[in-house]
Amino acid sequence: MPKNIKLLIAYEGTDYHGWQRQSDPKTVSGTLEEALFELTGEKVSLVGASRTDSGVHAQGQVANFITQSKISIKAYPPALNSLLPRDIVVYESQEVPLSFHARYSAKLRIYRYLILNKPYPSPLSRRFITHIPYNLDLELMKEGAKYLLGTHDFTSFSSCQPHQNPVRTIDRLSIEKACPRENGEVSIIKFEIAAQSFLPHMIRTIVGTLLKVGKRKFLPSKIKEILEARNRASASQGVPACGLCLVSIEY
Amino acid sequence: MPKNIKLLIAYEGTDYHGWQRQSDPKTVSGTLEEALFELTGEKVSLVGASRTDSGVHAQGQVANFITQSKISIKAYPPALNSLLPRDIVVYESQEVPLSFHARYSAKLRIYRYLILNKPYPSPLSRRFITHIPYNLDLELMKEGAKYLLGTHDFTSFSSCQPHQNPVRTIDRLSIEKACPRENGEVSIIKFEIAAQSFLPHMIRTIVGTLLKVGKRKFLPSKIKEILEARNRASASQGVPACGLCLVSIEY
Repeated sequence: MPKNIKLLIAYEGTDYHGWQRQSDPKTVSGTLEEALFELTGEKVSLVGASRTDSGVHAQGQVANFITQSKISIKAYPPALNSLLPRDIVVYESQEVPLSFHARYSAKLRIYRYLILNKPYPSPLSRRFITHIPYNLDLELMKEGAKYLLGTHDFTSFSSCQPHQNPVRTIDRLSIEKACPRENGEVSIIKFEIAAQSFLPHMIRTIVGTLLKVGKRKFLPSKIKEILEARNRASASQGVPACGLCLVSIEY
Repeated sequence: MPKNIKLLIAYEGTDYHGWQRQSDPKTVSGTLEEALFELTGEKVSLVGASRTDSGVHAQGQVANFITQSKISIKAYPPALNSLLPRDIVVYESQEVPLSFHARYSAKLRIYRYLILNKPYPSPLSRRFITHIPYNLDLELMKEGAKYLLGTHDFTSFSSCQPHQNPVRTIDRLSIEKACPRENGEVSIIKFEIAAQSFLPHMIRTIVGTLLKVGKRKFLPSKIKEILEARNRASASQGVPACGLCLVSIEY
């Protein structure tokens, strides 16, 4: 009997061409599929909840695969971790109904974007936090973010033009000073954004555009105009991949 | 007129053979001295407050050097950062009296040791946080740490045997769950330890020995016995360098 196995996975995306297996370059799902082949002898197809871009990190990626293997479910994390490079770790494994699909069954995807807002970059967080040296007005950015909440046509914030269905619903978009005690950094701004799904590059374009509000280059109400323009050129450049992390997936 | 310049420096120690310049391998001070040579044309001798070991990080190292250069004091951070690799950053520069010596004038050195205490390691923090999968009793470790506070002969915790003056004074040694929000990790234990100076490998040996208390292999009172033994063999193995970070120096 085939089994459907769900994995909870974390990775540092720095050295990968994103999640999704491609023909040639090293990807996270390709690396996991190779480890699964080594373990089970099966060429499985791993379905990830989110196709994170090149350089984006994950601490709560979910993926599933169908297998005939008789390996005990609980053995997958230690066995896979012994085969994987140190920048990918499998935390949990669980048998799920055959109908479960990591991508299509997902109800909510939660991402975080971190910014280090001080004059010089930090050598300790450079792989995970984007450095922005200029002053940012947190309150203005929060005001701008309100226009993005709820259901909208997000064409202006998508790198895929035209998209056959550019309507998305943002359930949460918080902006706050992150707790500084853990690594001593005192000027970290955390964006957290949750939606059932996102358009390509949508989060990084949203953060980049809100930074213009924070820099007082855009009024907060400009966000509403950009949404209504339905034109990628009206929004700002996206922020770098390294500050983005897939936090968790809810089903 | 020569000037004495004090620098505030952060670095990721992963790829360096420690702070102190040696004949051959790449060190943090050697790399900084090369950048200073490129900038000023002078072969300066950079004095660091703490000679951090190979692989140890710093977010608040202090160093000074004497120069005849006429470069404006404020120009050092941006000029040096443009010459340095990304894993070393100079945050501040300041002219100080010629009598100031980063190492001998230091009144307090504050270090932090981070432990990720959960079943699997994290790919996102593996360079900065040591992974310990077994359960640790925080209260027992705190109790054991009390014996180390104040002035003692720390021979048992030093890798330099015999040391001509093994007496040191620990002003603070706190152990707590670190704030988890910044990188989503929920099981980080933070050791913070402050003293005017430390013996070689003293902090990592102290943390390693306290972990034995946390694992219930040693009673907290065993720490007192280890101190009194004045014998390196009585303490435990030191913990890995990657979890250690020089937080700040007070003058």
